[in-house]
Amino acid sequence: MKKHILSLIAMVFLAGQAFAQLPDPGFTVDEHTAIVITDPQNDFLSPNGVTWGVVGKSVEENNTVENIETLFELGQKADLPVFVSPHYYYAHDHKWEFEGALEALMHKIGMFDRKGPLTTENFEGSGADWLERYKKHINNGKAVVTSPHKVYGPETNDLVLQLRKRGINKVILGGMSANLCTESHLRELVEQGFEVAVVKDATAAAVIPGKIDGYQAALVNFRMIASHVFTTKELEKAIGASK
Amino acid sequence: MKKHILSLIAMVFLAGQAFAQLPDPGFTVDEHTAIVITDPQNDFLSPNGVTWGVVGKSVEENNTVENIETLFELGQKADLPVFVSPHYYYAHDHKWEFEGALEALMHKIGMFDRKGPLTTENFEGSGADWLERYKKHINNGKAVVTSPHKVYGPETNDLVLQLRKRGINKVILGGMSANLCTESHLRELVEQGFEVAVVKDATAAAVIPGKIDGYQAALVNFRMIASHVFTTKELEKAIGASK
Amino acid sequence: MKKHILSLIAMVFLAGQAFAQLPDPGFTVDEHTAIVITDPQNDFLSPNGVTWGVVGKSVEENNTVENIETLFELGQKADLPVFVSPHYYYAHDHKWEFEGALEALMHKIGMFDRKGPLTTENFEGSGADWLERYKKHINNGKAVVTSPHKVYGPETNDLVLQLRKRGINKVILGGMSANLCTESHLRELVEQGFEVAVVKDATAAAVIPGKIDGYQAALVNFRMIASHVFTTKELEKAIGASK
Amino acid sequence: MKKHILSLIAMVFLAGQAFAQLPDPGFTVDEHTAIVITDPQNDFLSPNGVTWGVVGKSVEENNTVENIETLFELGQKADLPVFVSPHYYYAHDHKWEFEGALEALMHKIGMFDRKGPLTTENFEGSGADWLERYKKHINNGKAVVTSPHKVYGPETNDLVLQLRKRGINKVILGGMSANLCTESHLRELVEQGFEVAVVKDATAAAVIPGKIDGYQAALVNFRMIASHVFTTKELEKAIGASK
Repeated sequence: MKKHILSLIAMVFLAGQAFAQLPDPGFTVDEHTAIVITDPQNDFLSPNGVTWGVVGKSVEENNTVENIETLFELGQKADLPVFVSPHYYYAHDHKWEFEGALEALMHKIGMFDRKGPLTTENFEGSGADWLERYKKHINNGKAVVTSPHKVYGPETNDLVLQLRKRGINKVILGGMSANLCTESHLRELVEQGFEVAVVKDATAAAVIPGKIDGYQAALVNFRMIASHVFTTKELEKAIGASK
Repeated sequence: MKKHILSLIAMVFLAGQAFAQLPDPGFTVDEHTAIVITDPQNDFLSPNGVTWGVVGKSVEENNTVENIETLFELGQKADLPVFVSPHYYYAHDHKWEFEGALEALMHKIGMFDRKGPLTTENFEGSGADWLERYKKHINNGKAVVTSPHKVYGPETNDLVLQLRKRGINKVILGGMSANLCTESHLRELVEQGFEVAVVKDATAAAVIPGKIDGYQAALVNFRMIASHVFTTKELEKAIGASK
Repeated sequence: MKKHILSLIAMVFLAGQAFAQLPDPGFTVDEHTAIVITDPQNDFLSPNGVTWGVVGKSVEENNTVENIETLFELGQKADLPVFVSPHYYYAHDHKWEFEGALEALMHKIGMFDRKGPLTTENFEGSGADWLERYKKHINNGKAVVTSPHKVYGPETNDLVLQLRKRGINKVILGGMSANLCTESHLRELVEQGFEVAVVKDATAAAVIPGKIDGYQAALVNFRMIASHVFTTKELEKAIGASK
Repeated sequence: MKKHILSLIAMVFLAGQAFAQLPDPGFTVDEHTAIVITDPQNDFLSPNGVTWGVVGKSVEENNTVENIETLFELGQKADLPVFVSPHYYYAHDHKWEFEGALEALMHKIGMFDRKGPLTTENFEGSGADWLERYKKHINNGKAVVTSPHKVYGPETNDLVLQLRKRGINKVILGGMSANLCTESHLRELVEQGFEVAVVKDATAAAVIPGKIDGYQAALVNFRMIASHVFTTKELEKAIGASK
């Protein structure tokens, strides 16, 4: 009995050790790999966007705008298909009867607002539009633009189907914002049986000093949930090596 | 033009302010509300469980074991249906061809292991079994035990259906562990159109000082994603007031 | 033992009887009920649509065009929210690497084709556009138009979320075509815990005499899967009675 | 203008022709292909099962029991992984507040009933148990038994994840019953981006002469939705050829 308890203690100790040394499964880019970008839109990434006041510092520190552009370019260079999952709210979404905290805020500040799903009136250059410098990468006749996700994850759009219909089972993930849409895409893609790596400086998040740090939260969860976490530079190298 | 820029700056500033003052939509307990508990199992909550070395301190600091029990008791007293979403791995799950970091670890340390879906051999008292003190609350002929989730969220089990088939559209969420299964349940339930409140001290998470703080990460995301965050005491009061 | 066998035989016989007398759970319209219409688009319902050659006869026999319009009007009169789930294919969908039989056909004949998700160029009056007479019902600032479904069911769009965000848990279903998108919506809504009734003459299907009868197939499955099957007239009466 | 109308008529006519000649995309068995069997349980396939009175004739005409066994054997011989998606109802499922017609019937006749998810009391030999002759194929340490589906499709279990975690993207589908669980599995797997073939005589359905023909309904939808429809013999040949 005593022996049993001792071995139990040993096991628990070892598990603790193992946990402290979280494995890193790694991620190899192959011909079934795609790049997925969430919300590369003005409201997150432009100094004129409605959230710049809280995400701007994190965007600048991470060099997020340039790093997302690097992902688009890597897709082109390495012939990795690129999928963009945008976030739009239409007039009818403002009639929802309940919302989580940030959903309530997004609706209040008119984030990602578009007039409706079948009109592009006033869309050009709005907070919901792509960041200007990304347009040439998204409107190139190759990138797949999915239907908008409506909360944070791809449960409400066709991203998973679009990936599968192209034979994709591995995803390199970047975009905005780290702990909300990017992380919800990570979580759902993992539930759907994709192998996912996140590019941690091709994203950013709301940081309010002393109150909330969405970016740190995301880093913790990326590390635990994804197969691997890259920097943009590490990814460039990994893709170069795989060619 | 100048005026336009100034009003833009003003708008961005106000959005920043609004963001800093994240709304709290609140959560009222009504007759369509249920309590959902994730992973109330030995491997998380017992000192003999395989993760105690990394989650034990957070469990003790939050008084998690007692607070989860209070949720079970509140369900009974206030006639709120209770749903339990467990986490099991069977022999065949160990043949998966790829895993995220923590999935790899869970499999390595034999977390939540059961022999198979159609046998309870060696289950009693194992790491996959309920914490002993919860058994009277779960095996009372009233609580609904769903099929196991297989990664972190309820995408792979029948929780959403079971809730809907009982007319539930609001969920009070607790259980283990905060930033993984609890948060993935929060995120998926929100995507499925539930109104969700989280009980922040009826959960806990892996904390490795100076390296990883799963609990802080969860608090950030609970605050942003849920409709409201309760302590167990606040929830008790709210339920008392609603009766 | 013999007795046991006899009682088994009796039980099986009674089950057979029960099965032959399939229950009809019924469907009561209440304040949580919405009308959902699938694919009310030219390619199915206009003599100029690409499928008219095979669905036209069924559309005419069922008086489908008028009955769908009656559903829109009932929504307006009885203050039941109306949700429309359209079917669109974009240029990028034509690059899918595999398809089921009818998916292959739809792509081949250019069914539901639009140029892209962020342009309405050439959309007006095309096969993908609403039937002209429905436009006043859909573009009235009240109906919710979801993102397009991409195969047959709402798994790839935001219909379930939109319904839940308005407090809907019961659905009256009509639209095109009976055994494909309408039935896939029925099946998925039932899996998601909605109570669903189908209006069997506000739909129609491909019928190729002596070869395939999509409408009969749908009737069999509506009867088994839905909570109730209405005709448009029966529904009008039921809604009148509930007011 | 006239010319335009004439070309429109021509196009519609050709589309009708195309539709009448529904393409057959075909299905090639490769190393990413699995066999999925729905509900190989006594309540459907044994003369003692509760539905034998209505499905027995279809089961005998199709030689379903033997053909499903052939699928299990083909999996073994050709080294194709086998996944089984069962159907169970527990005590708590009988408290659902609403059901579709056949769900109501299944509950009424005690179909697929088990005492609970964590006990196998009275399971052996019950209507919910595997058909006796299949046990050696399912309990061989290789087949993956998923959690039960709770309505008709795999939305409520882990089938999709289990397939993806083994690198499967093509499915050969058989099991019971044709127009309900088998077809709902077909539809959901297609929505999730799997390439699916159905084996039309390794399934069967409720047939009540002059009233309902579930098998005919299924055949119509298999032909339209799947990538290919095999007979068991055709599949044997196709697999033989692929080796």
